[in-house]
Amino acid sequence: MSWQLTSADLPDLARGATLLGTGGGGDPYIGKMLVEQVLGDRSITILDPEDLTDDMFVIPTAQMGAPTVMIEKIPAGFEATLALRTLEEHLGRTADATMPIECGGINSMIPLMVAAETGLPVVDADGMGRAFPELSMETFAVYGVHGSPLALAGERGERVIIDTGDDDRQMEWLARGITIRLGGVGHIAEYAMSGADVKRTAVPRTISMALALGRTIRLAREAHRSPFEAIAETLSTTLYPHVRELFVGKVTDVERRTTEGFARGTAIVSASDPTSDDRLEISFQNENLIARRNGEVVAIVPDLICVVDHESAEPITTEGLRYGQRVRVLGISTPEMMRTPEALQAFGPTAFGLTEPFSPVETAGERRA
Amino acid sequence: MSWQLTSADLPDLARGATLLGTGGGGDPYIGKMLVEQVLGDRSITILDPEDLTDDMFVIPTAQMGAPTVMIEKIPAGFEATLALRTLEEHLGRTADATMPIECGGINSMIPLMVAAETGLPVVDADGMGRAFPELSMETFAVYGVHGSPLALAGERGERVIIDTGDDDRQMEWLARGITIRLGGVGHIAEYAMSGADVKRTAVPRTISMALALGRTIRLAREAHRSPFEAIAETLSTTLYPHVRELFVGKVTDVERRTTEGFARGTAIVSASDPTSDDRLEISFQNENLIARRNGEVVAIVPDLICVVDHESAEPITTEGLRYGQRVRVLGISTPEMMRTPEALQAFGPTAFGLTEPFSPVETAGERRA
Repeated sequence: MSWQLTSADLPDLARGATLLGTGGGGDPYIGKMLVEQVLGDRSITILDPEDLTDDMFVIPTAQMGAPTVMIEKIPAGFEATLALRTLEEHLGRTADATMPIECGGINSMIPLMVAAETGLPVVDADGMGRAFPELSMETFAVYGVHGSPLALAGERGERVIIDTGDDDRQMEWLARGITIRLGGVGHIAEYAMSGADVKRTAVPRTISMALALGRTIRLAREAHRSPFEAIAETLSTTLYPHVRELFVGKVTDVERRTTEGFARGTAIVSASDPTSDDRLEISFQNENLIARRNGEVVAIVPDLICVVDHESAEPITTEGLRYGQRVRVLGISTPEMMRTPEALQAFGPTAFGLTEPFSPVETAGERRA
Repeated sequence: MSWQLTSADLPDLARGATLLGTGGGGDPYIGKMLVEQVLGDRSITILDPEDLTDDMFVIPTAQMGAPTVMIEKIPAGFEATLALRTLEEHLGRTADATMPIECGGINSMIPLMVAAETGLPVVDADGMGRAFPELSMETFAVYGVHGSPLALAGERGERVIIDTGDDDRQMEWLARGITIRLGGVGHIAEYAMSGADVKRTAVPRTISMALALGRTIRLAREAHRSPFEAIAETLSTTLYPHVRELFVGKVTDVERRTTEGFARGTAIVSASDPTSDDRLEISFQNENLIARRNGEVVAIVPDLICVVDHESAEPITTEGLRYGQRVRVLGISTPEMMRTPEALQAFGPTAFGLTEPFSPVETAGERRA
């Protein structure tokens, strides 16, 4: 069922989107402020994917770049809409709706920004079901919808169209080159598709899930209940039903660098008990990719690895990680459509150069008797 | 007057274009082979700019990249035509002719390649009047025609459109980023313009001048005459009337590196007499930029600095420079439209970070009494 989103929903949505960002995806709070400013007291129509007619035309919109740069380089505001209009003009066809390509992080907000500016509705679905660092890591692509032609807009009104046919990795490679030359951030419109394609290839209801997660954390805090129980309860009725606490401890080391347009690095969370040498190591490329507890893999991409405050459950991004923070690390299962062999080829461990095989978080690291 | 160019003209044209490449511009011999292969025994119509009607539509075509890479990465052949077709489609308008953006080096050949493939005529004019390393260094831009939108094609059929409005430097910056990610070479269509604009902004008759230069050098050799006298005689009736011999000697040092998509470096030519410490230092960025004789500037961009074999006058590119070569270095004056204050801002010394002011080669380095 379609519904209306207002500015009052944005803080909860931002919190939930940060959780689904699994450490990356860019800070949605900056995007939230931009949406609030443009939206005012109006509302945005959020379309349930099942409500789309097959011949509707949907153009997803997003921001691309390293999250570390996105924090420092606040968009002018018009860029994503300019990318959408550029792609419409190129295709000679007007969009009936926009949609996120990524439900985690700032890209939960960019389509709302476009909606607030244009009046277009936003489809409650996305192509990552979380955040991923590359434009080719999309369920859209996995199930046959390609990203090209992609339109990219810069803050000085630069407009670029990239068409690499079926080669989404080459599209990502060229668009990343432009984004780096634009100073580290670009706004894009890509993966234009029909309503039928959305229903077939998108991860459904991820905006409403992000909103529900952010809200349940807030309400639990207000009611002095455990936000962790609230998270588990909320997820139990979604396509992401399994949550595991992977570790509780404090951050004892963070190493990060921005290279080739990505934020890469490692974080160590150690047991609070100083006599224990129990520890969790998390590696990330924009997003958290793999969590090893004392060397053993307990969660791996595409499952979600979320670092949150140990009491409030406030999600912490990789660029927000600081020495001494007391955190919990959650593993959350992803939908089955994100765990198929073809999906794992696009955004599973090997896509990030990891040699460890995918292992579902609900059973990973369980020692066999 | 318009004329027909055949495969028989290509060796002379390549020689002349290498001379006008002033050390850079990419090796035209590879381009020549590609044109010969496609053209066979047909001919290409070369249109004199004065024969264009004002409302004709001209789309220039070219290759971009570092000459050092161009030698190793031979184009598939279809790329420049694909760039032209991509721009036509984007603009919704069909070209009546193509044209070089650069008359020196390989870009003398790329529009001929497009002509051989499509049957389009080629306008006898260009926007650099020589070779320059950047797409924004065009008389077109200096006199009000901008490069955007630019279409860029890659060897795997990648197509990119870049529109930076009036900002030709930003266009160059973004297109260079794509070219680097394509492996160092891209093919482009840009500076689409009317016949009236060609007549107002292009350097006229530079294809026929390159052909005449290459031919006069060959005929002089065949007649055992001095090719240097022949060059001077041929240039005397063009917009490039002044030739000076800047130095005769042998190459004693060459330092070059390929960085940021450009070939940069320095060459030293020393007097053949070992008791003399007379020497000429040439700095280049793809093309030769400045020649200093014993520290004194004797030629500076945009005037032409051409290193040629000391006897045959065969032009030598920066990547062809070798220790011990016996060479003459010629300085050739550029047309007045390339020496105006606005032209010097686009491609004069300061555009290359040189602090020395422009000084016409016909008088540069002359000591005042």
